[in-house]
Amino acid sequence: MSVGRYAVGVDFGTQSGRAVLVDCADGRELATAVYPYSNGVIDERLPEPYDHVLLEPDWALQDPDDYLRTLRQTVPAVLAEAGVDAADVIGIGIDFTSCTMLPTTADGTPLCRLDELRGEPHAWPKLWKHHAAQPEADRINAVAAERREPWLARYGGKISSEWFFAKALQILDEAPEIFDRADRLIEAADWVVWQLTGIETRNNCTAGYKAMWSKRDGFPTNEYFAALDPRLEQVVDEKMSRSIASSGTRAGLLSELAAAMTGLRAGTPVAVANVDAHVSAPAATVTQPGTMVVIMGTSNCHILLGDELAFVEGMCGVVEDGVVPGLFGYEAGQSGVGDIFAWFAEHSASPEYHDAARRRGTDVHRILEEEAAKLRPGETGLLALDWWNGNRSVLVDADLSGLLVGMTLATRVPDVYRALLEATAFGTRVIIDAFESAGLAVTNIVACGGLPARNKLLMQIYADVTGREFSVAASAQTPALGAAMFAAVAAGSALGGYDSIVEASRQMAHLSPDTYQPIDSHQAVYRDLYREYVRLHDLFGRDGEGVMKTLRQIRHRSGEEVPIA
Amino acid sequence: MSVGRYAVGVDFGTQSGRAVLVDCADGRELATAVYPYSNGVIDERLPEPYDHVLLEPDWALQDPDDYLRTLRQTVPAVLAEAGVDAADVIGIGIDFTSCTMLPTTADGTPLCRLDELRGEPHAWPKLWKHHAAQPEADRINAVAAERREPWLARYGGKISSEWFFAKALQILDEAPEIFDRADRLIEAADWVVWQLTGIETRNNCTAGYKAMWSKRDGFPTNEYFAALDPRLEQVVDEKMSRSIASSGTRAGLLSELAAAMTGLRAGTPVAVANVDAHVSAPAATVTQPGTMVVIMGTSNCHILLGDELAFVEGMCGVVEDGVVPGLFGYEAGQSGVGDIFAWFAEHSASPEYHDAARRRGTDVHRILEEEAAKLRPGETGLLALDWWNGNRSVLVDADLSGLLVGMTLATRVPDVYRALLEATAFGTRVIIDAFESAGLAVTNIVACGGLPARNKLLMQIYADVTGREFSVAASAQTPALGAAMFAAVAAGSALGGYDSIVEASRQMAHLSPDTYQPIDSHQAVYRDLYREYVRLHDLFGRDGEGVMKTLRQIRHRSGEEVPIA
Repeated sequence: MSVGRYAVGVDFGTQSGRAVLVDCADGRELATAVYPYSNGVIDERLPEPYDHVLLEPDWALQDPDDYLRTLRQTVPAVLAEAGVDAADVIGIGIDFTSCTMLPTTADGTPLCRLDELRGEPHAWPKLWKHHAAQPEADRINAVAAERREPWLARYGGKISSEWFFAKALQILDEAPEIFDRADRLIEAADWVVWQLTGIETRNNCTAGYKAMWSKRDGFPTNEYFAALDPRLEQVVDEKMSRSIASSGTRAGLLSELAAAMTGLRAGTPVAVANVDAHVSAPAATVTQPGTMVVIMGTSNCHILLGDELAFVEGMCGVVEDGVVPGLFGYEAGQSGVGDIFAWFAEHSASPEYHDAARRRGTDVHRILEEEAAKLRPGETGLLALDWWNGNRSVLVDADLSGLLVGMTLATRVPDVYRALLEATAFGTRVIIDAFESAGLAVTNIVACGGLPARNKLLMQIYADVTGREFSVAASAQTPALGAAMFAAVAAGSALGGYDSIVEASRQMAHLSPDTYQPIDSHQAVYRDLYREYVRLHDLFGRDGEGVMKTLRQIRHRSGEEVPIA
Repeated sequence: MSVGRYAVGVDFGTQSGRAVLVDCADGRELATAVYPYSNGVIDERLPEPYDHVLLEPDWALQDPDDYLRTLRQTVPAVLAEAGVDAADVIGIGIDFTSCTMLPTTADGTPLCRLDELRGEPHAWPKLWKHHAAQPEADRINAVAAERREPWLARYGGKISSEWFFAKALQILDEAPEIFDRADRLIEAADWVVWQLTGIETRNNCTAGYKAMWSKRDGFPTNEYFAALDPRLEQVVDEKMSRSIASSGTRAGLLSELAAAMTGLRAGTPVAVANVDAHVSAPAATVTQPGTMVVIMGTSNCHILLGDELAFVEGMCGVVEDGVVPGLFGYEAGQSGVGDIFAWFAEHSASPEYHDAARRRGTDVHRILEEEAAKLRPGETGLLALDWWNGNRSVLVDADLSGLLVGMTLATRVPDVYRALLEATAFGTRVIIDAFESAGLAVTNIVACGGLPARNKLLMQIYADVTGREFSVAASAQTPALGAAMFAAVAAGSALGGYDSIVEASRQMAHLSPDTYQPIDSHQAVYRDLYREYVRLHDLFGRDGEGVMKTLRQIRHRSGEEVPIA
């Protein structure tokens, strides 16, 4: 391989965006730059001057200008840091959280950027973890079940409140004037590619996983949408598009405007947008069935490839060509993982652990991990349900909540921390069991994302609980690397890239030497604990009139007099 | 009333002992002195030089020399502080936690004071909250049920692991040589009176509530004890006594030795020992049926008087003359209340609350209470089962544990704190419901103990959850006041005291002007939440094979390789 074939991948996350500059020959990451969104996650009040507008507890928005600031800050930074000439960059690709969606005008201007709508919460991008559209998701599911919609089975029988049409329908329900003003409803991923190329495209990954589209059947019918709400009948034709581009293809070329913004050359190939989780699979070396990829960060996302279409309980979805062309890509997820650990460290760890972290010049998570690692499996006497952020698979219910049982006066902070780590591992095992029950083997696992390198105890617990070997992707930033790999594919071999993602993965993706093997004596204890986890899981998760639902209803009633966005 | 009739009450608590000097005329508390036990609660390791001897998690011991140090430090201190002449003290009485029991030689020397036994955990006094005798309690209950023992119904069908014979049987099971060495097995309350008078007496309150004794039937039969374990057949005759003295009578006169220790005059009347909770009822003005007394501190104890014998599910016990002569005294309890709040504040409140407390020069509980008070009922979305220390009534099961449900990433420290306050109120309501189901009316409530004055939010929540008016005893130290009232009764009117506890209560006990009325809108929300509490209570508490039990078994198995006392 000759010198001078580089690709840029930009990963748009929950709190920040990051760019990586990658050598197309071997995937070497030459430079990385991160931009922490200036408005972060907007979940309490709108940004100034509308900070008197309060949001309900389940809301989560972002600022689209943070996406542009990410491009403006990070791409020039990686070029500069690596000392690479823009002429040697053969492509740029992006990945995004999903479903993160926004309403725009016909020319792509986000509605929240219009003066008269800036104070309207529904004019802003709804982040993936915006969970306020559960009533709409319930309606979407009920109407689909009643009409026996064929697409429902692909999503495990239920779609999530996080998805595209639940969010769209919430806008219509609660702010019909915003819905009317929206010429376009679009995934943020596609919106950013639009800003890069000047051309509106729609990618098959978000369409397939989050908008009930499939290669064979397209979107649900207009009749279905009309049954949901007559005003929704033409939503696809009027506000979206039926032309869906495959990931691994080229969306267009970098516009002059975007070239000025990024420091790249106009005309650089731009890949069709992708999703952070899905793009991670090839970046974690996985392009074949049998190996599950778990992207572990604030939440967990599970990707498994299959030769055939199978129906798995409560899966997020299965999309043909959704991850790797020619295979069915299955997705499952856990809505809270690192988020829960962070919540615990911030709100439930007593001062002594923070003091210890300060004294040692380290992070409180490191102290908690060290202390939790001293405990034997089962020793805490605790068990948790990891639903602080709802349950994405297999129950698909954002109204579920966390549970912790077994506390005594002798319970200490590291006990609870360990129980939370274990709970997320049990949650992963439920998903593996669901895959295997549907005939999709999970023989081993590759982990990637932010957590595996930071928390070795967590990895060992996952191996022990699932009874499977866990490998770890070499890259600490698989989404950005994956986006760069897709950029190399968008460029194609003619420009020094690759003609398929399988080939790009073979050259550019690597595993770390760290692997975690299940330990027999731990497995035995965790088998017993998992039985109890499943008992609680079914008790609290499968009872439609359960305690968690009632608590949420009582909480909503108690808040009726509160100012609501 | 003439000047110069004083009584001393000494209250032996969990962490400290306290003496109060009281004016017999009106109950005025002239001086108080507290001695924090130098060895506190012994629950991790024995005191030096045996601190290499580790205790299992459920153990809790005390040092009998801390009881003597209490007498030596506090009684002279109150005399000095009040400037009262020992000649004007007409009596001394004590109350104690119960069942706190110890093995001694024939002359009353605690076995743990013998050099050769000081390193043996079973030689030490077992504190009320020693919870390691659950297997023994299970056996006691099973054998009693099988034999249809008539006394079982008086204790709601189940005795607790905290009680006298469960603890005695644990000594026999685990350290038969200590059991053999014990000439006497005795309540710490009676042991202290023995040290004061030189005469071994046994009080009817601990015998009735904690040792299955009744005025009409005495102790369980020797045949029953033999069925439990042949070596236990003669336990009452050989190591205890069948002569049981009534509270409100005189145990004896202060010995020369005890006079030297306390600074009181030899010959001062000494009351028969009493129990902290029971002695609090008359000290809280309650000597008639209908008003429940709740002693709120580390744990809650509930006392209710009745004209007749009724059988109430899971009651701690009913003892004729046990609280007030001529009435049946019913006792129920919650094993963890203030203990749980303290656990939470110490281990689960993040630094910002501790920092705020420091800045304001106050206690972290004050900050948590203030913040929790800003929340509306139901607003937290949380619900807890208050079983961190097991459940004493109505489930009578020390193996139960805490539960918290409803957490989301938006859950904050004051939310959880409030949920824990509420959980203990729901626990009290379960007990009230059990009393009322058995035909014992609870029309209103008088609270006493350490918590009511410290936490007004807690009192309001209790009123709202129970739907009953809560008054508060004027004295902040009702046990010590009650002990002093019994001292005045031991002296009798001839010496300037009283001839009955009812009369003493009328003169010496008072209510605070603070009362708490249930608020309608709160009651409505709490009715809904209580329904969910009862659902969880029955789900986790009434299933013998429940998750909490299994977690405890798994924890015990995980600890098998650990050094165990």
